[in-house]
Parts: sequence; structure tokens; C-alpha cells
Amino acid sequence: MRNWILPEHISDVLPREARQVETMRRGMLDLFGRYGYELVMPPLVEYVESLFLLDDPALNLKTFKFVDELTGRQMGLRADITPQVARIDAHILNRKGVTRLCYAGSVVNTRPDGIQSTREPRQIGAEIYGSADVAADVEIIELLFACLGMAGLDNICLDIGHIGLFHALADAAALHGEARDQAFSALQQKDVPTLHALTADLPADLAGGLRALPSLYGGAETLARARAALPQLPGVIDALDALQALATALAARQISVRFDLAEVKSSDYHTGLVFAAYTTGFANALARGGRYDRVGEKFGRARAATGFSLDVRALTRLPFPDAAPGILAPAGDDPRLIAAIRALRAQGETVVVDLGIVAGEVRVDRQLVDGKDGWLVVAFDGKA
Amino acid sequence: MRNWILPEHISDVLPREARQVETMRRGMLDLFGRYGYELVMPPLVEYVESLFLLDDPALNLKTFKFVDELTGRQMGLRADITPQVARIDAHILNRKGVTRLCYAGSVVNTRPDGIQSTREPRQIGAEIYGSADVAADVEIIELLFACLGMAGLDNICLDIGHIGLFHALADAAALHGEARDQAFSALQQKDVPTLHALTADLPADLAGGLRALPSLYGGAETLARARAALPQLPGVIDALDALQALATALAARQISVRFDLAEVKSSDYHTGLVFAAYTTGFANALARGGRYDRVGEKFGRARAATGFSLDVRALTRLPFPDAAPGILAPAGDDPRLIAAIRALRAQGETVVVDLGIVAGEVRVDRQLVDGKDGWLVVAFDGKA
Repeated sequence: MRNWILPEHISDVLPREARQVETMRRGMLDLFGRYGYELVMPPLVEYVESLFLLDDPALNLKTFKFVDELTGRQMGLRADITPQVARIDAHILNRKGVTRLCYAGSVVNTRPDGIQSTREPRQIGAEIYGSADVAADVEIIELLFACLGMAGLDNICLDIGHIGLFHALADAAALHGEARDQAFSALQQKDVPTLHALTADLPADLAGGLRALPSLYGGAETLARARAALPQLPGVIDALDALQALATALAARQISVRFDLAEVKSSDYHTGLVFAAYTTGFANALARGGRYDRVGEKFGRARAATGFSLDVRALTRLPFPDAAPGILAPAGDDPRLIAAIRALRAQGETVVVDLGIVAGEVRVDRQLVDGKDGWLVVAFDGKA
Repeated sequence: MRNWILPEHISDVLPREARQVETMRRGMLDLFGRYGYELVMPPLVEYVESLFLLDDPALNLKTFKFVDELTGRQMGLRADITPQVARIDAHILNRKGVTRLCYAGSVVNTRPDGIQSTREPRQIGAEIYGSADVAADVEIIELLFACLGMAGLDNICLDIGHIGLFHALADAAALHGEARDQAFSALQQKDVPTLHALTADLPADLAGGLRALPSLYGGAETLARARAALPQLPGVIDALDALQALATALAARQISVRFDLAEVKSSDYHTGLVFAAYTTGFANALARGGRYDRVGEKFGRARAATGFSLDVRALTRLPFPDAAPGILAPAGDDPRLIAAIRALRAQGETVVVDLGIVAGEVRVDRQLVDGKDGWLVVAFDGKA
């Protein structure tokens, strides 16, 4: 075994792809800025106690851990950035009003999500704290579409669900502990036979409601079907009202979505609305997000919160233009040559000093030559 | 103890500072691009065997380690990026010609370098592989000055040394093992009495040469003093010739430097020329770099290499302008409002939708109001 082999599901981003990742990263952060989001950069490592929210066992399993030799305490390498941003909102900034935050950075997972998944997603995301209004969810979804559009992805399918539906039904049915976890898991896997078995002893309206969820899938008409199929519990009505308001606002923005009321595939910290974006050619969701209103609790301040995140590197399969070609310049200490190179670079030109054959993807189409009256840029003669 | 407290020497980068870090990161990467450097993004984690070069014990101690549960092998969280870039040059790209690579990313150290040091430097750097020419070192130093100038830092003091001087003298004196390490350490600390004691039994010219190194400090005249004070060994002559060529080339570029021929404070992988940049108000070096020609050996291909790196966050103590103020817009689904907001953002304006009091550093100086003939941008009335 050669010792420079990288671990499985870990890879270098080489020049051509790195240029794409960097371009998209900048474009998305600039887009966030135009919506009023402020950039934060949480650290790569923290004590494990602050890296997870609400005792999140899935995130715990995904996190590499090691001992801080300064204190003997256990530290973790972040596997998600959202909990860190919630900590910043709740504890560090501690503002009263609406706070919009965004971030971009690598996270590392102990295990890949799937056979083709990376263990180092380059996560980028945006979050709104302090607004429980559906207008905040609308803004987040609009921003997600703007990001995907900028990455050249159209024909996006956004699946929207609401975790509150399951919880309202499970609460009313007094499903707790393992029974609740099993029902949740069956719903997540859309395992209808198991869901039937698990709800066999429940009151008919609640069993019927839970069993109906996997079939409540489709366009805006799904919400009307849900009102008919689900019992009129306050939590159910609230969730459907929120989804209806969202549907109306997104329609006004020409953003078409699908509803999937069994959609509970989300992080453990999501509490209400959840969504996932898909497109043809990508097996996995391009982006995920939703409400996580209790997320600040652990940090001493529960704040309404909604947001999304995506792996910017996963979007870089698109064709991308080559970098603009540059100018080859000879090496040397002639003050006129030094001045000429500096002036060209100040104009934004790429000037590559000739230190031997230039390898790689840096291309030149012009060169600096010593003319009678100074250094001139001429067409590249292909001889360097 | 409250569990959201961050580990010592680890901190969040909050909005104002994050904007500065991001601006400098982009500026420096763009600058590298104008010199023909290609961006690479090595992973945050690798097997420990590939994270260190040449059995670097200092870097090993600085690296957090944990077990890869997919293979049972030991992985590390990178404490430096240069060895990763050397691996990419040697093994992944495996090009024949000159390759210029640059990178930007966090590294994490188990221990801080000093009381005020961070354990998470945001490292940015540039490297040239495949050229042993002093013109490559000149380019790297010129690029470093351009980076620091862009960060608003002038009055830079660059200390230049050459590790080859010590090694030529120590080889000639047959200093090996512990004796060599002790002499190296004494020189690094400029501990002249210990250096005297350790060289007491050496031939007079070699002892004199080693003892002279700490006094060989100053401007370009230092090189002439060194030629007189040091024995005429081939390694000494080569090192002084390289330093002289560098001095001439930098003078032609109006870059003033100091020579410090005992300067051996560098990473273990440096093999020749080394340098460190200082300025008033900063206790530590702003940037470090030099030659590390054997760096690719471990990856199967020794290539001439020179480069520098710096912690971009350490440079952000400079005053920095506020972000441009934006436009406040009401929330709502009016198609004309939606269109007006989209048009303003497409023009590059920041438009903040009113979801309640906007906290933080996002400022607005205008607002969108519903006029008779459509939505208008007017001066902000301060009421939102």
C-alpha cells in the first residue's frame, strides 16, 4: 500500500474543479449578501457538547472525535455547520431582532451518506433567526432557487413536507419512546405495511391519518386532499395552513414545488417545514433545509430559525469555461520589464514568468518581447 | 462550565471580521491567478503517513489524530497545507514542467505557537514546483509583498536566511545525530554561549563559521561579510551565491530585505533559502516561506520547490470599510414588488425583506414603497 493514497470518500479538488468550486462559492456568498445575509466563519473544531443540538445521535455518529491536549476534554471535527451558526446567533451575537447569517466551509463525516458520497462536503448555507413568519421560509426557498440557478441548474424539483404533521398525530395517539421512533422510521422509509402494523391499535382517525401520509404526495392539490384525509388536530391545521401560505407565496414567485407529507428525511434538529431539492442526473438531494425553531435552546435561547444548506462541490459537474489565457514574460531584472509586467497585472491580465515549460491548465496566447522602444505584448509564438 | 464555550485558542469569525477575511482571501487568490497560479483544495483529513514530509516531528506533534472507522487506519486533521500541495504536485498532477499552485483553507494545531496564537490559522499560500532557479524565489517574494500590500501592510521587513549554510558547515565538521541537533537548536535560539561550547572541539575554521552565523545580520553588505567570515566550502559558496542573486533581483524590484544568516526558524521541510516577513505592531511573523526542494521525495518525486504561506486572519486587524447600505423592502406576494426586488438585486443592490427589526451590521439607507405607478426606492424613513 502506497502511503500517499487518500482515505476512501476523501479527495483533492484539482485546478479545473477548484476554479468552479471557488466561482460558485463566491457567487453564492455574493447572492446571500444581496439578500442582507452576514457571513460568519465558525471554527473547524469545538468541544463535542456544543457541536450537536438536542442530543442528535445521527450527527454524533458522523463526527470524528479526539482529545484536546490543553484541557483533556473531547473535541470534535464539525460534521455540520448549522448547529454552530445557531450557537453564534443564540450566544455570541445574542441580538433581539431578525438575524440573517450565511457560511461556507468544509465539514467532515466519519461515514459517507452513500456509495458515491464524499466524506468532506463543502457546505454552504443561509439561515434566518428570529422570524417564525412563513415569509422567512419563502425567502430561504427563493434564495435556494437563485443559488441553483446561478450554478446552471434548472428544472429543479423541490419536495416540501412538514415534520409537525407526524408529531401532531403521534402526540394525539400518545405514541412515545420506541413505538414513536419505529413509526417515524417506517414513515421515513415509506414502509406502508410496517406503518399499518404499528398503528393497528390506535384510534381509527389517528391510524388513518398516519397511514395516509405516504400517499399525500403531489402538487398544490395535495393540501386539499390532506385536509380531508387527516384529523382536524390543531397541530395538523397549523402545519397545513403554513404549507398553504407557502404554496401561495411560491406560486407568486413562479417557483413550482411538490408536496410530500411523509417527507421527514431531514436532520434531527428540524421541527416543522422541511424541503429537499432534486434535479435530473443527480441521485441525491442537491440541497436540504427547513425550520428548526428549537435549535437555540441548548445555547440558552430558543429562536425561530429556518435555512438551507448544500454541498457546493456536488454542483460542479456542469461544464465550465476555461480560464482566460495569459501572457508569457521572460524572467529577468530589467526595470522596464518589471514595470511592464506590473502594469499588465494591475490591468487584471495574467502574466506568467517563464521559468521553464509551463505545465497544467494555465494557457498563454500572448508574450512580452523586447521591442525597440520598450516591452511589447505580441501574439505567442509557441516556442516557450 | 457552560457547554457552548469554545476551546482555548479557537474562535468564531463574526460578520465584520469575516467580511475582511473573505475580501482578503479573494484578493490574494485573484492576485495568485494573475501570476499564473492554479488553485487546489486538498482535503481537511488524510492518513497520517501522507500529512507529514520527511518525518517532521514538529508537524506530527501539532496534528490532531483519530481512527478512520472505514479502515481502522490513523487519520489526521491537517496542521499545514504545503505537504498536501507537494503531494498533489508529485503524485496527482505528476507534470514535467513548472507548476504553480496556490491554496486557501483552515488548518488546526493541537497547540498554539504562542500565548496569543490561534490554533486554527486560515492558511493561504503559493508554491512553485519544478524550478530551482532563483527567479522562482524572486517571484514568490514579489508575490508575498503584493499580498501584504493588498492587505494594507507596508513597512514590511523581510528577513532572509539560508539553511544550507548551517548544513554545509555541520557536514564538513561531521556533526551528526544529537550533536548536530543541539547545534541547530542553539543557532535557532541565537544562544551564542551554548554554540561556543558545542563547537569547542571542531576545527577552527568550521567552529568559527558556525559561531559567526548569529552575527551575520543586516543589509546586502552582510553577504560580503559572510564571504570573509565563513570557510569556502562548496555548500557555503552556493548558498551565498543564491542569496547574492536574490539580493540583486529584489533590489531591481525596489523590495528591501535584511539578511539573517542564522535564520533557521522554519518548518522542518525547508532545505535552502528561508524567509519571514515582519512589520511593526505584529509580534509574530506575518508570513514565512522558502525552499523545500526535497519535499516531493516521500511521494516518489523530488522536485525543486519554493513558496510562502500566511494566516489571512492574522492580517485583519486593519481598519476596514463598512458594507454598502441596502434597501428595505416589505414582505409580500405582490408580483410587482417581487419583480422590483429581483431587478434591484440583479443590479447588485442589497435588498433586505422586512421580517421584523433587522439586527446586526446590515444597514439600510433606502426603502421600497408602493407609489401610484409602481414600487419606488425612496430614502429610508427610519421606521422599520
